[in-house]
Formats: sequence, structure tokens, C-alpha cells
Amino acid sequence: MKARVHVMLKNGVLDPQGAAVKHALGTLGFAGVEDVRQGKVIELELAEGTTEATIGEMCEKLLANTVIESYRVEVL
Amino acid sequence: MKARVHVMLKNGVLDPQGAAVKHALGTLGFAGVEDVRQGKVIELELAEGTTEATIGEMCEKLLANTVIESYRVEVL
Repeated sequence: MKARVHVMLKNGVLDPQGAAVKHALGTLGFAGVEDVRQGKVIELELAEGTTEATIGEMCEKLLANTVIESYRVEVL
Repeated sequence: MKARVHVMLKNGVLDPQGAAVKHALGTLGFAGVEDVRQGKVIELELAEGTTEATIGEMCEKLLANTVIESYRVEVL
């Protein structure tokens, strides 16, 4: 089975990567870019029958820093 | 309007970050993790009426390195 985990910085947490991308898009002439946030996506190929709870545990323990990041699990 | 761009390494391109995550999950006792690939997700807040073609151009010019990465645009 496949799962996809999205990890984003929480609202209010400064995102320098996103700010750099926003600035660079402006420099390249793309107008109207109001905000950019950058996060991670992790695609997992797991043994059949792995529960969503187990995937949540992986996120809590390793994949996301829950102090500043939120995550979303999507089982494919 | 909001758009989300997913950038992943192409198949066959070595993904050391993914390999590190896979190894770390094994070390933490999670069995059955067969493969891990890590990519980026970029959330854009754009002016209304920005076309998907424009977003594609942003990807080609800045957001993805199309030699080794593939991207997918999702308008929300």
C-alpha cells in the first residue's frame, strides 16, 4: 500500500524558504504572487495492512516536528 | 486563488533524503517500510485569474528542476 504524508509549517511560523520563492517569482516577472509556503511531501510504500494510526505515529516520532509543523496523512 | 505544486524526484533518480527516512523508520521499530521518496510541496496564493499555464511556467523556470524532478499542479 502507498501513503502520502504532507508536512507544512504551521500558520504563524516564519517560512524563509517560502519567502525566498515568493521573492524569486517576483524577480522573474510573475505578478500577483501574494504568498508562498513550502512544505514536504513524503511518499511511503508500506506493507499491506499498515494502519493509519501507525502512519500517524511515524509522523509524530520522525516525519514532522509537531512543535512547528502540521501533517496530513493520505492513504492512496 | 490557491494552487499547490508537488515536486518529486523522477523515478530512477537517487533520493538520499528518502533513503535516510526509510532507515530511520526501521531504526525506530517500524517494520514493513519498503520505500520512501521525499519531495516538496509549494502552496501558492495567487491573484485571481492566474492561469494553470502561468503556474506551469513558474514550475519550469523556478520551482522544479525538470532534469531530475517532475511536478504536478493542483488548483484549489
